[in-house]
Amino acid sequence: MMNVQLTIPSMMERAETFFKKKEVISRSTKGMERFTYEETGKRTRKLSSMLVELGVERGDRVGTFAWNHHRHLEAYFAIPGIGAVLHTINIRLDPQQIIYVINHAKDKVLLIDECFLPLFEKIHQELPHVEAYIIMSDEPSLPESSVNPIYHYEELLKRGDETFAFLSDIQEEEPAGICYTSATTGKPKGVVYSHRGIYLHCMALGLRDGAELSEADIAMPVVPMFHVNAWGLPFAAVWLGTTLVMPGAFFTPTILAEMIQNEKVTIAAGVPTIWLGLLQELEKGEYDTSHVRAFLCGGSAAPLSVIQRFEEKFNIPFMHAYGMTETSPLVTISRLKSYQEEKSAPERLALKAKQGFLVPGVEMKVIGQNGEVDWDGNEMGELLLRGPWIASEYYEDDRTSEAFKDGWLYTGDVVTVDEEGFIKIVDRTKDLIKSGGEWISSVDIENALMGHEGVFEASVIAVPHEKWQERPVACVVLKEGYTAQVTKEDILTFLSPQFAKWWLPDDVIFMDEIPKTTVGKFLKRALREKVLERYELKG
Amino acid sequence: MMNVQLTIPSMMERAETFFKKKEVISRSTKGMERFTYEETGKRTRKLSSMLVELGVERGDRVGTFAWNHHRHLEAYFAIPGIGAVLHTINIRLDPQQIIYVINHAKDKVLLIDECFLPLFEKIHQELPHVEAYIIMSDEPSLPESSVNPIYHYEELLKRGDETFAFLSDIQEEEPAGICYTSATTGKPKGVVYSHRGIYLHCMALGLRDGAELSEADIAMPVVPMFHVNAWGLPFAAVWLGTTLVMPGAFFTPTILAEMIQNEKVTIAAGVPTIWLGLLQELEKGEYDTSHVRAFLCGGSAAPLSVIQRFEEKFNIPFMHAYGMTETSPLVTISRLKSYQEEKSAPERLALKAKQGFLVPGVEMKVIGQNGEVDWDGNEMGELLLRGPWIASEYYEDDRTSEAFKDGWLYTGDVVTVDEEGFIKIVDRTKDLIKSGGEWISSVDIENALMGHEGVFEASVIAVPHEKWQERPVACVVLKEGYTAQVTKEDILTFLSPQFAKWWLPDDVIFMDEIPKTTVGKFLKRALREKVLERYELKG
Repeated sequence: MMNVQLTIPSMMERAETFFKKKEVISRSTKGMERFTYEETGKRTRKLSSMLVELGVERGDRVGTFAWNHHRHLEAYFAIPGIGAVLHTINIRLDPQQIIYVINHAKDKVLLIDECFLPLFEKIHQELPHVEAYIIMSDEPSLPESSVNPIYHYEELLKRGDETFAFLSDIQEEEPAGICYTSATTGKPKGVVYSHRGIYLHCMALGLRDGAELSEADIAMPVVPMFHVNAWGLPFAAVWLGTTLVMPGAFFTPTILAEMIQNEKVTIAAGVPTIWLGLLQELEKGEYDTSHVRAFLCGGSAAPLSVIQRFEEKFNIPFMHAYGMTETSPLVTISRLKSYQEEKSAPERLALKAKQGFLVPGVEMKVIGQNGEVDWDGNEMGELLLRGPWIASEYYEDDRTSEAFKDGWLYTGDVVTVDEEGFIKIVDRTKDLIKSGGEWISSVDIENALMGHEGVFEASVIAVPHEKWQERPVACVVLKEGYTAQVTKEDILTFLSPQFAKWWLPDDVIFMDEIPKTTVGKFLKRALREKVLERYELKG
Repeated sequence: MMNVQLTIPSMMERAETFFKKKEVISRSTKGMERFTYEETGKRTRKLSSMLVELGVERGDRVGTFAWNHHRHLEAYFAIPGIGAVLHTINIRLDPQQIIYVINHAKDKVLLIDECFLPLFEKIHQELPHVEAYIIMSDEPSLPESSVNPIYHYEELLKRGDETFAFLSDIQEEEPAGICYTSATTGKPKGVVYSHRGIYLHCMALGLRDGAELSEADIAMPVVPMFHVNAWGLPFAAVWLGTTLVMPGAFFTPTILAEMIQNEKVTIAAGVPTIWLGLLQELEKGEYDTSHVRAFLCGGSAAPLSVIQRFEEKFNIPFMHAYGMTETSPLVTISRLKSYQEEKSAPERLALKAKQGFLVPGVEMKVIGQNGEVDWDGNEMGELLLRGPWIASEYYEDDRTSEAFKDGWLYTGDVVTVDEEGFIKIVDRTKDLIKSGGEWISSVDIENALMGHEGVFEASVIAVPHEKWQERPVACVVLKEGYTAQVTKEDILTFLSPQFAKWWLPDDVIFMDEIPKTTVGKFLKRALREKVLERYELKG
């Protein structure tokens, strides 16, 4: 067979060749802007040519700090198109982390949304490797700024070469992108994506048994482009000629619902919070969503009731997808097998509430206390992954050996596997409570706690125990109006019928809030310290 | 990213892991036999273990000489599963060609359908490399035979190891298969398929924008497994957990129609002759085909009327696919783009009569008389292809340089390309008539001739011409009852309104038959010699 490399430029070339008329629809401060793939190709080539002029070389990192819009999409192809590495920076990191990742990646050029310029005015002097700031703005000129040297994206493009040739000898193993995962402890860790990994991941997205993305779709990635490449959707959509709808900056559920209706979106992807907000908006009953064929949900599991309401009230198939920064991210999708479609509605719903089974191309092992777990939907084990779009290391980081061993990624996610191979995330390994040689899922108890009418949020952690090694303790924030109304005994009575006796928390601690990371995840480590401190003070 | 190789064993492992209960349904002399993928996996591993016991080593070629059935499917995975090379031998070659390909490939072991044993009794002494003959039989014992050493497939399997481990360190560039293409002149030419090529080709088959093969499908490859791996369907179906329906030996349109109905086939693949026969059978009105979502047609173009009857009378989407032995084979598919679905019915039909546009992963160039052709649906040029599942050479054959140049496969097919990138095959380069610096498509004239009520078959060839270099001459076989009724003038008058004047043949020669290859293609070279001889005799 020919030695043809799987590279990102070939994807854009396909869109330019066969899907000239198809569109990228981008929400800017000026309204909805439309660019055909023919225009997008030309703008991308112009950007590539200007990056070269700014001194970007093969292998250099170029950072983006931006929402989901057409210019960010152009950067997705222009940067790998010259053999450079697209570094999508998470705008939700705190400033010290932002400085860290830019310096760790040694970004040579940054492309920044105008709305983030004030942030870079504060930190740009701490970024010694950055040689140019390109501001992606909807306005004809830029405000005065201390950031320097500064370029207006559209002004640069005017000087660009729309016939610029992408690098033709890229080897598929070369890096195309890098994304840092926000560690709950320590500095963010970088994951490098190769051209090959992104390309094969796009094939998985386009499989009928994957996300089934196609030319006929009108796809809206709500998941940010600074988060695992918006799950690879921008790459796959361009390749397949899919119409892209980019929600831009600071969107609301109303804005999303209007875009879905007006642009006849067929598939959208986001995290549970997005879907919860959108669901409430849709339930006003004012939107036509008849064209939607799938909402993909990742990041964490959506509650069963949310899935049910989308499917039953709006006839919108709701699909969990599972993955992480280290996995490009698509690993599983909660698509039912043909013979499972014959099950009863509640059974189907229960399956869809799981994370699904592996998309073609990825392999797994689930390792419990006694080696590989039984596929009984019950035994818990850590999920290990392997595949051509799974990372093999953290970028220049000595924490690599913690997660990558013997050719497998140790995800740190604890799962059960049912007899059909459907996985269900039950916890993070570090949050799992090891009590008397058995495992207790903190997540299961948390989910149950969230079902109590007075509970606003809840987190369950392990505290050391002389006899049982560890025991669960529940930390609960009550809703306004319930404070001092709900007691420890009420909570335990509520949980009691749902769990084996030894799963019940030894203690319930009421708090005003639960400590969180900058991206909104529970900081269980900080919580544990807080609780232990409290016990010591009491003890 | 991890260095995970794209290999065939991983495909079978996926079926064994996630699709244990799904079935391979195989038509044998005993009726319809059913094997779950769990059983298929075990039988495949048994076969692998016995091939190793018979002395097959990594890189060795193992030939198959068989129809489409479960045992052939097992061989498809058992042979590459030990790092050996699956050589699917075309049963329609003549005995001398069969001897040539087996000796050229140096097949070490042959797996042969029992019905072909008499053939091998005649030729086995001319096959010095073959160390074992395994007979795939539905009977408990084999007939007396001079073929030696001979093994009964099922008896071998009884001794096999169902837990045998496939080779785990296969590199994706290693050969997995070889298939010889029947040249119209000279010896057959071998094309080697790598694990990587087959794997990526399977992804293309599974793409929503490719053949859309999925777990939910019940797929019937009518195209023989000895012909370009039955278009890769057996590989992709196992990987995706698709139910496979194997039509076995010597099927008729009635048998196919019954299998489609009874097994609720959703997708089938074959050549135009198959579909024409099936159409006549379906038109008896006795079959339920409501579950069929696609008939894939390749090999050559189906007449417009056939497409129309399938689509309009039976509501069965009929899709042309284009490819060849050298291309694994899938290159294009006549799937309409979303906005083309809005065209009128005749316009859609005209598009579907073309070969379609490139599936993701493949690139093309079309080179006419003045470099790359315009995409105007009119200018003719040779189709050049490039991609990870396109061959780069013929196996140990000095004809490689004729077809592979500058990193491109010169297909020898002459096409036009319309503004949407849809290609239409208009001729073979060697059959194209170059008249006065312009090109005339022999195929276009032949198709027009076939529209004449008295014409049974027709072939148009180039004869040398002093002034115009070449001129077309039509060779026509009339239907019974029309002989001596239809004149040269009748034919030219019939063609006249359909073509420019300079396209009309200079002569029409009536014949009793047109010389054909063993696989039924017109032998234009022999025909040309015959015609020139005739002219010389006349001259």
